[in-house]
Amino acid sequence: MVEDRNGLEVLDREESLTLLATATVGRIGITRPDGVPMVLPVNFCLDDDRILVLTTEGSKFDAATEERTVAFEVDDFDPIYHSGWSVLVTGVARAVTGADERHVVHASPLARWARRGACHVVEIALEEVSGRRLQGA
Amino acid sequence: MVEDRNGLEVLDREESLTLLATATVGRIGITRPDGVPMVLPVNFCLDDDRILVLTTEGSKFDAATEERTVAFEVDDFDPIYHSGWSVLVTGVARAVTGADERHVVHASPLARWARRGACHVVEIALEEVSGRRLQGA
Repeated sequence: MVEDRNGLEVLDREESLTLLATATVGRIGITRPDGVPMVLPVNFCLDDDRILVLTTEGSKFDAATEERTVAFEVDDFDPIYHSGWSVLVTGVARAVTGADERHVVHASPLARWARRGACHVVEIALEEVSGRRLQGA
Repeated sequence: MVEDRNGLEVLDREESLTLLATATVGRIGITRPDGVPMVLPVNFCLDDDRILVLTTEGSKFDAATEERTVAFEVDDFDPIYHSGWSVLVTGVARAVTGADERHVVHASPLARWARRGACHVVEIALEEVSGRRLQGA
């Protein structure tokens, strides 16, 4: 088992993506034009070599259409046993448009949680994938 | 009830902080020196007008000691009922040092999850606080 300097188990890419696929809610990290970071929860699905997110126009979508690099984080921790895992992805975000968008919306397990809006699809490339696991005390 | 354009209930500052205080794991959003965003899970506690985080030297701590504005996010969603809430804080992060640090570590409910390291305390000021609630379908 490989550990980082904090004693957390370092997960490889495959293991990280396996854990990522078990979740339906993640968080996108973006940097606003004024340089201030933002973290926004989104529902998502893993689709081959990309993460797909349903979103609305606004900060997330603006970041995507500008083809900027964003962060995407998923975790699952047990507050009682102090155990859990986290996976961090960084990659370029792009708006998915046209026929591909319609295919994604209808064929993927992406749930449409928000009652209004949320009709834009953003994909995040799986460029950097890293994961950590914390064993319970 | 105030709703945003996505049909999510807008929570006021007081309600947002009440929900924030129910959690023990949040995520810090920072921007790396190369401009790439990062999202890192941390355990935390709410202490009056600040969020306290136990961390190690590295990206989170570097961001803090440079007194940069960071994002801090907490959420709780139910994947079955598509309900939940999220709270986003932005504020300047600062390293807590000296006697104040020792007081915080010993007196706060901050759990020390990591097995090694994790002896630096970072505080995040509650400058901007916003929250959303999603009612189940």
